[in-house]
This record gives sequence, C-alpha cells and structure tokens, in this order.
Amino acid sequence: MNDQTPVRQSAVGDANPFAGGCAFVEGEFVPISEAKVSVLDWGFNKSDVTYDVVHVRDGGFFRLDDHLDRFFASMAALRMKVPHDRAEMAEILTECVRRAGLRNSYVAMLTTRGVPAPGLPRLPSLVTNRFIAYAIPWVDVISEEVQERGAHLIIAKTPRIPAASVDPTVKNYHWGDMIRALFEAEDAGADTAVLLDQDGYVTEGPGFNVFAVIEGTVVSPDRGALEGVTRQSVLDLCAKLGIPCEVRPLTADELREADEVFTSTTAGGVMPASRIDGRIKGNDRPGPVSMRLKESYWQFHRDGWHITPIDY
Amino acid sequence: MNDQTPVRQSAVGDANPFAGGCAFVEGEFVPISEAKVSVLDWGFNKSDVTYDVVHVRDGGFFRLDDHLDRFFASMAALRMKVPHDRAEMAEILTECVRRAGLRNSYVAMLTTRGVPAPGLPRLPSLVTNRFIAYAIPWVDVISEEVQERGAHLIIAKTPRIPAASVDPTVKNYHWGDMIRALFEAEDAGADTAVLLDQDGYVTEGPGFNVFAVIEGTVVSPDRGALEGVTRQSVLDLCAKLGIPCEVRPLTADELREADEVFTSTTAGGVMPASRIDGRIKGNDRPGPVSMRLKESYWQFHRDGWHITPIDY
Repeated sequence: MNDQTPVRQSAVGDANPFAGGCAFVEGEFVPISEAKVSVLDWGFNKSDVTYDVVHVRDGGFFRLDDHLDRFFASMAALRMKVPHDRAEMAEILTECVRRAGLRNSYVAMLTTRGVPAPGLPRLPSLVTNRFIAYAIPWVDVISEEVQERGAHLIIAKTPRIPAASVDPTVKNYHWGDMIRALFEAEDAGADTAVLLDQDGYVTEGPGFNVFAVIEGTVVSPDRGALEGVTRQSVLDLCAKLGIPCEVRPLTADELREADEVFTSTTAGGVMPASRIDGRIKGNDRPGPVSMRLKESYWQFHRDGWHITPIDY
Repeated sequence: MNDQTPVRQSAVGDANPFAGGCAFVEGEFVPISEAKVSVLDWGFNKSDVTYDVVHVRDGGFFRLDDHLDRFFASMAALRMKVPHDRAEMAEILTECVRRAGLRNSYVAMLTTRGVPAPGLPRLPSLVTNRFIAYAIPWVDVISEEVQERGAHLIIAKTPRIPAASVDPTVKNYHWGDMIRALFEAEDAGADTAVLLDQDGYVTEGPGFNVFAVIEGTVVSPDRGALEGVTRQSVLDLCAKLGIPCEVRPLTADELREADEVFTSTTAGGVMPASRIDGRIKGNDRPGPVSMRLKESYWQFHRDGWHITPIDY
C-alpha cells in the first residue's frame, strides 16, 4: 500500500527550517528548536502532562487512531481539555510531518496542565491546558546495532512507581525510577533495564513493553505497564501467525529463565534481547520467535496494515 | 538585621523587562517569559530534573546555604553536574533577584538532564546537563486568606510515590500523585491534601511538610517526605522556644485526632490548618502552638536569623 502512495519529496531540502523537525506550539508551526515549555508550566514543574507518540514509517502513520484514542483517554483521566478534536489533531500531526518532510518520523502529541494565573488558588482545575505536537526524525529507543545483536538487559533493583500513585496506562513523563534503572544498567555494562513492581512482577522498561517466550508461548505482563500500541500489535500478530500468547503475571525468574526475551515500542518496533542479568539466551543472538515477530511487524507495515498514508 | 541593610529600589519600575521575574538560562539573564525548556530535554520529557527553591523576604535570602547544600546533594544523587560552583550559583541567584528588583521573591534553581545528542545511545550519562535559575514575585503555596482561617485538609486516597522508586529527599517534579490528591481535595471542597505512604503513615502534601501537635508535642513524620528547610526551621524553633518535638512515624489517625495540624514550606512558611477530613480542630481557627511557631518564624526572619541580605 505504501508503495502505491504518491510521495512528493520536500522541495526545500536542507534549507527547510523544519528539516530537523516541526512543532505545533500555541497555534503556530515552528522549527523543533523553538518547541519549548515555560519553567512555570505545571507540565514541567509538576510533570503534570500526558502525551502519546505515533510513528511514521515509509510515509504513513501506524495505528494513528489507536494513539489518538489513548491520548484522549489519558487527557480525560487527568481532567485535561484542549481546543482540538480528533480530526483537527490528526491534521496537525500530519502537517508537522509534512512540513518536516519526514518519511520516517517519531510524532509526539502532548498536553501540559499549563501556567497558573497569578493570584488564583493553586488548583489544577483552574489552569488552562496547553497542546503541543511535533514530528522529528525517526528515533530508536534501542539502537539498530544493539537490536541486531540482541539487547543486553538487567532486571533493575529500583521498583516501578506503583499504579496506585501514578497510573502507567496514562502515558506520563514520571521517569525517575526508569532513570535510576538506566544507571543500574550502565553500571552493569548492559544496554537497558526491566523494572519489577513491588510484588516482584515484571512491568516494563524505559520506553518499552516486555515479553518472554516460554516453551513457544509469548507472555506479556498484565500489570504495572503502559498498554502499548506496539504491544497490542504483537498480540495481534501472534493471533494472525498462530503463535500461542498469554497476558498474565510474569515473575522475574520466569523472565530470566525464558527461552527468549524481547521488547516493543513505537520508537523501534519489536526489539529482541539476547542477554538478561548476564545470562545468555539461545546462541547470544535474537531468538527465532522474536525474529519472526520482528520481521512480521515490518512486513505488515509494508502491506499497509493499520497504515494511514500521508499526502506530502 | 534586614532593617539595617541599605536597599536601593529598582529605578526602572514597571518598564523593567524583568519586573515579572528574571531568569538565568544558557548563561544569559532573560525575562521570566523567556525561561523555557525544550520539549526534547529529558528534564521535561522524562522529568529527569532536580531543583530547589529559596525565598527572599524583606530583601534577604533565608537559609541560602542550606538550600545550596541540598541542591548540590540532589544533583550528586542524580549524577548531574553544572559548570557553576556554590559561590557562582549564589551570585546568579542574587543577580536574578536584583534584576527583578524583588524584595520578596521565590527563587528557583534547577538542573535538567539536557537534550541528548542525536545518534548516541539513550543513556543519561551521555547527556550534558543544563542549569536554570529564576526569581519571581513571592508565591504562597496556600493563599494568605486560607492561612488566616486555617487550611482545610483531606487525607488523600492516592498514596505517595514510594521512596524506593523516587527518592523524595532529592527534590523532584514527580507530582502525579500530588495532582491526583489535589483533585481529591477539590472534589471534597478542601484546600489541599496530605498523602500517606503505602503503610498508612503520613508523608507530605503538594509542596509542604506536615506537622501534628499532640498533647503539646510537635510531631513531624520521619519518612516519605522532603527534608524541608522550613521543616528544619520549625524543629530549630521548637528547640529555641522549649516546645517538645518529635520526628517519628505518624499515622493517619494520629493526624486526624491531633490537637493541631500545620504545614511548612519555603513558599509560605508555617501554615496552620483548621480542618482535616471534615473534622474541626479547636475553634475552627489556627491553634495556639501553630500560631506561636508561625509568628516566631517571621519574627526570627526580622531578627536576621539565617538571613543573607541582598545588595540591590
């Protein structure tokens, strides 16, 4: 389907002020370098913000409707409102990609609580929310080279922030636990980390969902994590490919002892791991089920599955 | 001591571009309206940032050294570095206040992880940190009117983010739990909220420490909270005034049944409460121990206690 999509290349090339990325801020399209948030915005100084990210691959959005659904649900959960409906928002995101001239892009939408008016009580309901969008060149949460050899993971000692305090299904920037886990990974010579909840069950990692392959069955945790759109795509692919699949509690030991481990994210797709806590999986390379899902994920993209082509 | 300090009033008055506040961003002093953070800075999009706030009252910083101590300790805990030593930082903060011409000011210093360079692995150690400071007109976390009658508190159902996930003694912007608690307070018709930890012990509220007065003894929680500079000042004042004082675990029931409840913050000082979960304390007004500490707190300011006068 992508191959049939007519594509105009950006005519302005490097001289395009949006070449590094295009943002929509306070009703204007601006270069990404001008996409900034006031230090007085609660979205910054209280991390009172929600967001979503959709990717564009080969000139088309992937599962744009699912990302918009989740973004509007996140805003509702935080009692936030913006003056754009779904159709307008889709058009703003498209225009960001179009102006940046990006065929492969990481496209973010976010709403901050805003800057409280001086003199009013410091209550979130009294603040006018602010919407920002931007499209930047493709980002891989885990670099392509690391994806090729399989990521080296650790299980972090830092526990994930509990859902009772901050709901992980409302996409948020509360990454203090993730940052600590990333330092744990660096200290251990690993690429990235997986976090457990306080009961010892696997949740997610910095920017990705986690899967184990155990005796041919793909297992994804049922708690403490974002309900990732790429994760949903993996579950969908399992159904299509006839791979057994379970969403259930997953312990740290099960993850360590799994035949394969892989992760999923909008910013990278299906990303196999080859080591966890120093244990080598298979032959220290991405495993066969992980690779089959990774390849299918991109093949389904090429076939137009859930793709919204962009008219550049 | 303040009274002896020579003070030059700002000569520029309303025409001063810094009248609404002055910030220090990327090495330049700019109006507060230009104090912004990139949407790509991890300080925003991962809340990977620490900060501190010192107040200026009647032309002098209060406990500036204590705030600088804590800020440098917070940066060390997050493995952040900035190209300013303590003396330079104190001078930057002073210059922000001076340019804004503020005699009463909320003065913030903050360090964000920064914007990662494209192409590098997404590891926090590889990012260059950014320092920002700003001085804005005095802010009260709880308005003066509410302080006068005594704040109406609730004990929130939302539990505080545990210290194991995000260390509350490293001052941070992870307020997702606090925002939920503020909505709980609004829904209940209260002014603000106190959060418990997962074991049911009192921690802190949105921007303040919490105290109970129980049979003449001032009690402050020993866990789950920022080690507030104003809280320390209350403990110091108790020692000076001969008021018995304990730092120990404090349960929700103890707080509800206390003779008095008050809160403390840099952005307001000692702030008495008069109701908690609908229960009226005393005669529905600030209690006598709370008022004595509040009055002493400001009297000690006027006497120059821990004050660093500003040469405007």
